[in-house]
Amino acid sequence: MKIALLAVGNEILTGKTINTNAAYLAKQIEQIGGKLTYQQVVGDELDEIVDALKKAYQKADFVITIGGLGPTVDDLTRNGVAKYFNVPLVFDESIYESICAYFKRMNKAVPDNNKQQAYRFEKSNVLTNHNGTAPGLFYEQDERTIILLPGPPHELQALYLESVEPYLRSLITDRKISRSYRLCGIGESYAEQKILSLYDKYPMLNIAPYCTISHVDYIVTTAQSNETKLDEFEVDFTAILNDHIIGSQNSTLAELIVKQLAKEKMTLATAESCSGGLLASSFVDIVGSSSVFLEGIVTYSYESKMNRLNIEKEKLLKYGAVSAEIATDMAKNLKNQTKCDLSVAITGIAGPGGGSKEKPVGLVYIAININDDISVHSYIFNGNREKIRQQTVAAAQYLIFKIIKAL
Amino acid sequence: MKIALLAVGNEILTGKTINTNAAYLAKQIEQIGGKLTYQQVVGDELDEIVDALKKAYQKADFVITIGGLGPTVDDLTRNGVAKYFNVPLVFDESIYESICAYFKRMNKAVPDNNKQQAYRFEKSNVLTNHNGTAPGLFYEQDERTIILLPGPPHELQALYLESVEPYLRSLITDRKISRSYRLCGIGESYAEQKILSLYDKYPMLNIAPYCTISHVDYIVTTAQSNETKLDEFEVDFTAILNDHIIGSQNSTLAELIVKQLAKEKMTLATAESCSGGLLASSFVDIVGSSSVFLEGIVTYSYESKMNRLNIEKEKLLKYGAVSAEIATDMAKNLKNQTKCDLSVAITGIAGPGGGSKEKPVGLVYIAININDDISVHSYIFNGNREKIRQQTVAAAQYLIFKIIKAL
Repeated sequence: MKIALLAVGNEILTGKTINTNAAYLAKQIEQIGGKLTYQQVVGDELDEIVDALKKAYQKADFVITIGGLGPTVDDLTRNGVAKYFNVPLVFDESIYESICAYFKRMNKAVPDNNKQQAYRFEKSNVLTNHNGTAPGLFYEQDERTIILLPGPPHELQALYLESVEPYLRSLITDRKISRSYRLCGIGESYAEQKILSLYDKYPMLNIAPYCTISHVDYIVTTAQSNETKLDEFEVDFTAILNDHIIGSQNSTLAELIVKQLAKEKMTLATAESCSGGLLASSFVDIVGSSSVFLEGIVTYSYESKMNRLNIEKEKLLKYGAVSAEIATDMAKNLKNQTKCDLSVAITGIAGPGGGSKEKPVGLVYIAININDDISVHSYIFNGNREKIRQQTVAAAQYLIFKIIKAL
Repeated sequence: MKIALLAVGNEILTGKTINTNAAYLAKQIEQIGGKLTYQQVVGDELDEIVDALKKAYQKADFVITIGGLGPTVDDLTRNGVAKYFNVPLVFDESIYESICAYFKRMNKAVPDNNKQQAYRFEKSNVLTNHNGTAPGLFYEQDERTIILLPGPPHELQALYLESVEPYLRSLITDRKISRSYRLCGIGESYAEQKILSLYDKYPMLNIAPYCTISHVDYIVTTAQSNETKLDEFEVDFTAILNDHIIGSQNSTLAELIVKQLAKEKMTLATAESCSGGLLASSFVDIVGSSSVFLEGIVTYSYESKMNRLNIEKEKLLKYGAVSAEIATDMAKNLKNQTKCDLSVAITGIAGPGGGSKEKPVGLVYIAININDDISVHSYIFNGNREKIRQQTVAAAQYLIFKIIKAL
């Protein structure tokens, strides 16, 4: 079954609202084996909606519209769909009663313009909206199906899960299965190069990489009947990229680190310079981090490095704040001060200023101290200040992950 | 000039990535008077890209594609556009040199598959990408113009501002002018209520609020001939919302704070609990923060609060870590320890656990110490852990901003 999503609204066409509804629906539908073939955004104009429906039905037999069911004059989805199918709109007393009941609960009078929300297509089904006034509508004609959903995300999501998903599940015969792998510590280009032969070896699998600044996800999808191929692929893929696979696409290094440390009853502390608290924050963001994460220090100035971490002034002057020596001392002293099991220290040049030929912008040292065994790693990252800081955090997390995985 | 946006990528079609790039471009283009007439999302398939281009050029004469320029086998935008225009792709030595230089800076070899990024259309212009390997491409044929932009948002945004916007500006004859105002410390509903009368008073202006978790932007757009009305509007708008306006939509509180403190030759230090380094990181992200920001401490555990900030154990036990008293002591001791001019301390419950009837999840205390004048502010924020932490940082920044503005 091929499905198209049509988001209706000037606020999306002009960038005022980000189209999160489309992403939500697409992800939900893909997961149950539906095939998204088309996504368009259309403004609040009757003929544009009709035109978009024509295009959508060229690519799909099932269209879901998002938004444009509100009470204002701009809300034209209902009318556009009626015009496209050439089906009359009829006033539905029971919808209107629901709308009245909704306002009554809030002790408010029903505004006149909400009346237009009580119209539905002749012979259409009404999908009750428990969270707002605009019900969803379901209509079929000549093997074309359409579902109209309201735009507010919490209304759309509740309606989808309650009324649309069960129906879609019952229709999808060609069920798909998929597996995902999250890779860290490797870029998309290198990963692709390493597994290039797998594309030829497994033509029946759809292998797709998704890249961000901190990781690369591979999502592999195929028909249910190809499950054994998926198993074989997994063996090959894992053999090639084992060092970098941290789990599925829902895994995050911060969460894995916090959970693993909690399991080992180990504690963590961080000392950061250029990353400025971003690493600490990544751990604090994890539920349950309080049992693991003791403290983070952002020793941004020379004085702070000296006063908080007892870094010797002579060493700072001799090696510079951005050096393997200072990173090492930061990790060493932090562990001694906090009695944590694992300390991480970061010092680097996030730019745009502060670089030199010997120490360019993007140079970062990360020191890890575990059981007083200290390792220092140096990197040169590309990009602007923000990107350098994000890559720094990703690299530090990956280092910690590898170390505690080896325990 | 009618403009269409075409986002290319299975990751968007299937909902894995939210199409923020389209929203960004649409917003930028609308502001300079460009008219968005079409937005589509298309998967990584050659014929689908060709088909989408046909549709887009029915609605627009200028198409911007987003994404699909990466080094992997499913990055097909270049090929799709070449097929649509029936124009050959040629290998460009100078693009390849830039790609090699990019990898060389990181002391890495150039992966083979990055070579495909060095192809461009015959007679096309290359838009240099300073933040990644895929350059943008510009091509014209038979009054149809196309610009190909890479998908990573920071690359796309930099390329748009540097190369695309100036060009679009030169083409747009029906010029629009716009002004923007960023509001902090106030929600969208309240702001709207306060300025409701201005919508009626200025019907010739398009007044549009854009809301995020940390601020509300108002963008006001009109024809160039209405400039005096824009001036009048500004007087009215400012009179009503003056306390909350921090500048234009490009202003950030962190940047304004760092600049103002630098001007006053004042220094800053932070002590955080539930926000976990996010506040410190927001300052370190600002170029030039090293002259202002001394240090940040994430005193996540009781021990850390006692050892690093000399918080008394008795007080912690008596009032609890999340209390006005502890926030006050944190701000007080931090300032004494670091000799900074302004210290900020945050303690709160980010959830999902740890709440009680008296101290619910979302309760946050923020203490500010300036010249030993300490003020404490309490909040109860809604939302999940991440949202509570983000709102905490936004509130702390707004407090600091107001205080140093009044100096």
